[in-house]
Amino acid sequence: MAINRRSFIRNSAVAGLGVSLLPSFSFAAVSKQVLNLGFIGMGLRGEEHLRNALDRSDVEIKAICDIDKDRLKFARELLKEKGKSPALEFGEDDYDYRNLLKIKEIDAIIIATPWLWHTPMSVEAMQAGKYTGVEVSAAMTVEECWDLVNTHEETGAHLMILENVNYRRDVMAVLNMVRQNVFGELLHFRCGYQHDLREVKFNDGIHPYGHGVEFGEKGYSEARWRTQHSLKRNADIYPTHGLGPVATYANINRGNRFVSLTSHATKARGLHKHIVAGGGENHRNANLKWKLGDIITTTIDTANGETIIVTHDTNSPRPYSLGFRVQGTEGIWEADGNRIYIEGEANKPHRWDDARPWLEKYDHPLWKRFEKEATGSGHGGMDFFVMHAFVESAKRQIAPPIDVYDAASWSSVTPLSETSIAGGGQVQYFPDFTRGK
Amino acid sequence: MAINRRSFIRNSAVAGLGVSLLPSFSFAAVSKQVLNLGFIGMGLRGEEHLRNALDRSDVEIKAICDIDKDRLKFARELLKEKGKSPALEFGEDDYDYRNLLKIKEIDAIIIATPWLWHTPMSVEAMQAGKYTGVEVSAAMTVEECWDLVNTHEETGAHLMILENVNYRRDVMAVLNMVRQNVFGELLHFRCGYQHDLREVKFNDGIHPYGHGVEFGEKGYSEARWRTQHSLKRNADIYPTHGLGPVATYANINRGNRFVSLTSHATKARGLHKHIVAGGGENHRNANLKWKLGDIITTTIDTANGETIIVTHDTNSPRPYSLGFRVQGTEGIWEADGNRIYIEGEANKPHRWDDARPWLEKYDHPLWKRFEKEATGSGHGGMDFFVMHAFVESAKRQIAPPIDVYDAASWSSVTPLSETSIAGGGQVQYFPDFTRGK
Repeated sequence: MAINRRSFIRNSAVAGLGVSLLPSFSFAAVSKQVLNLGFIGMGLRGEEHLRNALDRSDVEIKAICDIDKDRLKFARELLKEKGKSPALEFGEDDYDYRNLLKIKEIDAIIIATPWLWHTPMSVEAMQAGKYTGVEVSAAMTVEECWDLVNTHEETGAHLMILENVNYRRDVMAVLNMVRQNVFGELLHFRCGYQHDLREVKFNDGIHPYGHGVEFGEKGYSEARWRTQHSLKRNADIYPTHGLGPVATYANINRGNRFVSLTSHATKARGLHKHIVAGGGENHRNANLKWKLGDIITTTIDTANGETIIVTHDTNSPRPYSLGFRVQGTEGIWEADGNRIYIEGEANKPHRWDDARPWLEKYDHPLWKRFEKEATGSGHGGMDFFVMHAFVESAKRQIAPPIDVYDAASWSSVTPLSETSIAGGGQVQYFPDFTRGK
Repeated sequence: MAINRRSFIRNSAVAGLGVSLLPSFSFAAVSKQVLNLGFIGMGLRGEEHLRNALDRSDVEIKAICDIDKDRLKFARELLKEKGKSPALEFGEDDYDYRNLLKIKEIDAIIIATPWLWHTPMSVEAMQAGKYTGVEVSAAMTVEECWDLVNTHEETGAHLMILENVNYRRDVMAVLNMVRQNVFGELLHFRCGYQHDLREVKFNDGIHPYGHGVEFGEKGYSEARWRTQHSLKRNADIYPTHGLGPVATYANINRGNRFVSLTSHATKARGLHKHIVAGGGENHRNANLKWKLGDIITTTIDTANGETIIVTHDTNSPRPYSLGFRVQGTEGIWEADGNRIYIEGEANKPHRWDDARPWLEKYDHPLWKRFEKEATGSGHGGMDFFVMHAFVESAKRQIAPPIDVYDAASWSSVTPLSETSIAGGGQVQYFPDFTRGK
């Protein structure tokens, strides 16, 4: 295929978050017209990705995989409903995804499975030469982080961590502001996953949310596997929704890097309390001792001298917030209250301004361009963009805007915070997954 | 003097934050009718205290001390204007306060001097048998913290740290809510001193705020001495406005205690930038290397399993906020946005409510009772209450509601954070200033 230079430039600009985030960008890259996709994991998250892929004319769904027959059936019917050819189906057992990976014509894979499967499946997908998209977090241990990096470097296959919050409209407008130096030299960030998940972690085995205090084999959807991590680990077990955008602001792995962290956990009360409230003191799950502290506070030092507070807060009654703050020598934005103060621009000294006019003024070109397409896609439009970036990058086989080094450094906060907490807050040092690059 | 039991009970209830914060409360205590006060430090903060004392019928100002003759004259004229007898005056040299302390008829001392003088003066005041009130922070080193505690224990003289934010109306309403278990079991707190002080740290030697980039001997008011701490220390150099209220919520030194902390500092940019902007690159002060990181983040672990994030942020353009959050198993309050979520009480699940109706409902009895008197006193009425608590406690020679152990443990965050930052975030352990009590 000849390069249509004009559309090529247009496409490359929209694939990611701007040229600075496309390090492998090259004029030698050739874009495929159509990307053949395989899906591993057809749960609620996989379904969302599938729907977004089905809305695109440049994607064909070649294979789907899930060990849950009902979910596989659901996906099959969704394809039919959308007038698509049937996809090959896999899911006979836990390892049937390996047969999916053997299919030559599949270019790219989207993995939306329980966390513990993310790294093994990603590694095998890259080894099979597939352009790999993996849900968050990408890895659960430092070894897994290295597995992802090493496999990418050995195989040349790319991995994108599908962090949708990087594509939130306000997050991208603020990225635009950061790049245009509105905040001056960056100093400090806050972010986190503050989301009352009690009704996600427990259910009745039938409904995905609420209606019971079961989990694991007796639970349904995320309660089947996600809850186990709260039982077994005292760590920031889900850092990337907050940290992904902040890492992008701070140019992590692009001239900057995470150096070290300390983490602190509160006592664990919320999940036990929820079980007792819903199932009584005699419920079998009321005897469990939950390791995960209700609120986990991690502070990261970067090589450029910024600090980042990352919060994990999923067991307590509270409204949802990712709690973003971006602060530099010229001003500050906070997502809570959507407020801003920029030196010399503020309406009154020492008084917050409404951030809305700023977010409108700096609305990211991607959002301006694809607003219509994004509307109706999941999570306020973010899911359209994360799929878009994945597909556009995969079609031209260039590095994705958020890559395997990002996946490794963001995800490594889980094991590092765990070790820090176990040591009473001891400093932990990040490996340099880029090996100095 | 016979005890007027009725007024006694009324007075004891209003002296502090409730019986639980008056550990030395005793029916043997006898209240003086009039408290004879001496003031050391007649700067802007001392003036505020003086004004609040002058408004009271149960206080006589016996002596005033300042090495600045202008400030002494100012105070003299203020007394005259209010129709009071002249006070004895001290300030011939840095140590003339010792002569003030020798005056037998003085019952109590208020110290509002530069930070480095707080502990030496407090120690000598207690040694002289005076009931001592000291401005924040009370101490700059761990040794100084012990000096305060040891002197109190040796002499029996009381020390109150004059933390006015403990008496802020919303802070006290939330204390009321905490004590009435509205938040359930407490888990996590946030607080800090987030105040753009660039125009306080520098001036022209004439105006107290702004108008220049001088400090030290060429500066005026706080710029004369406060700024030096930003030059010399990389620490949370001013922790108590945030930590005082939180420590009270968490019953620190009353069954709970600070166990350990880690601290992280950003690079130092704001003060240099401010000097260059106001004085040019060739200004003498533009050559200085400021130690204080622009934003300091400290996380404290308590013995009861709570965590506290304390922020110090005084060098950057930003609106003022002490950033309070109180979070427990039943809900959460945040001062920013003044929002609240209480399980089972919220108007909608997962949605913030306006905190105002809650703060009104739980308005503290002290505020209800003294609203009229507090109006017009400094810092939104807080300064009335801190003086009130000091005078009422001192009149009956009972322990103040916030005492020497509080002064020591809150103030120790400065040296402990400094050591932690110097060690790249290493854990520091708090001394138990109560020695297990």
